[in-house]
Amino acid sequence: MRSFCLVSLLLFVSLPASMFAQDSSVSAAVNSVLRQQVDAWNRHDLESFMSGYWNSPDLIFFSGAQKTAGWQPTLERYRKSYQSEGQQMGKLEFSDLNIQPLAPDAAYVLGEFHLTMPDGTTPHGLFTLIFRKFPEGWKIVHDHTTAAK
Amino acid sequence: MRSFCLVSLLLFVSLPASMFAQDSSVSAAVNSVLRQQVDAWNRHDLESFMSGYWNSPDLIFFSGAQKTAGWQPTLERYRKSYQSEGQQMGKLEFSDLNIQPLAPDAAYVLGEFHLTMPDGTTPHGLFTLIFRKFPEGWKIVHDHTTAAK
Repeated sequence: MRSFCLVSLLLFVSLPASMFAQDSSVSAAVNSVLRQQVDAWNRHDLESFMSGYWNSPDLIFFSGAQKTAGWQPTLERYRKSYQSEGQQMGKLEFSDLNIQPLAPDAAYVLGEFHLTMPDGTTPHGLFTLIFRKFPEGWKIVHDHTTAAK
Repeated sequence: MRSFCLVSLLLFVSLPASMFAQDSSVSAAVNSVLRQQVDAWNRHDLESFMSGYWNSPDLIFFSGAQKTAGWQPTLERYRKSYQSEGQQMGKLEFSDLNIQPLAPDAAYVLGEFHLTMPDGTTPHGLFTLIFRKFPEGWKIVHDHTTAAK
């Protein structure tokens, strides 16, 4: 009983400290997903880019004031916008990344995206991402991206 | 020692259950802030509407692809857009509210806004809000709103 008590006491006392200590590992894990997405985009591998998103019908993607629900429709939207005839993916960069851990399994990210297209245009804008931690890793469960006019 | 162990064990064991049970109270608290904001807007009380936002220089407001940092600049932006000469606040409604608790002190909200202006126009669009719980209550720490074109 005594050792069991000690273990439970240690677990309880260490919870808040470990939760705070997790902030930097949350940021690192989320940042790693974003880097993988940028790398995937820049080798024009949309399926790998999409692995950063929660593969669920409950993924919600806001592109400006257009709502898309679900992982598959979000992939199709990306294909139509960036891989259909006459479309290009260009080179993607993120800047001003602001990763805010909210819990051991939740964080949000604010940032700017910049595309450099083969025709020299540079679409850019702001995004807000909600990340949750799943057994398979950190995934975007909501993306709200707005391109500058 | 024994009663201390028992208390620490009970506290530890009860933590996950209490965290889940808090989801509905988180949703209710966040919903209450949103209702107060709508009521404040519709009586054209911008200061009261703004009390739903975190009064901090770290509040980040994305209006489309325009970034505003800080509570005071956000208030001034609202004043300029809705209370300066020739501007109107109109009647505000939210729909399709999706409140997602993330932790006992964090949640995000997706929704649609609809304005009905005195001239009959109906500006509308989508928003993403991040809420945190502070000693003074639940406040929006980040707002990403995009109006439909």
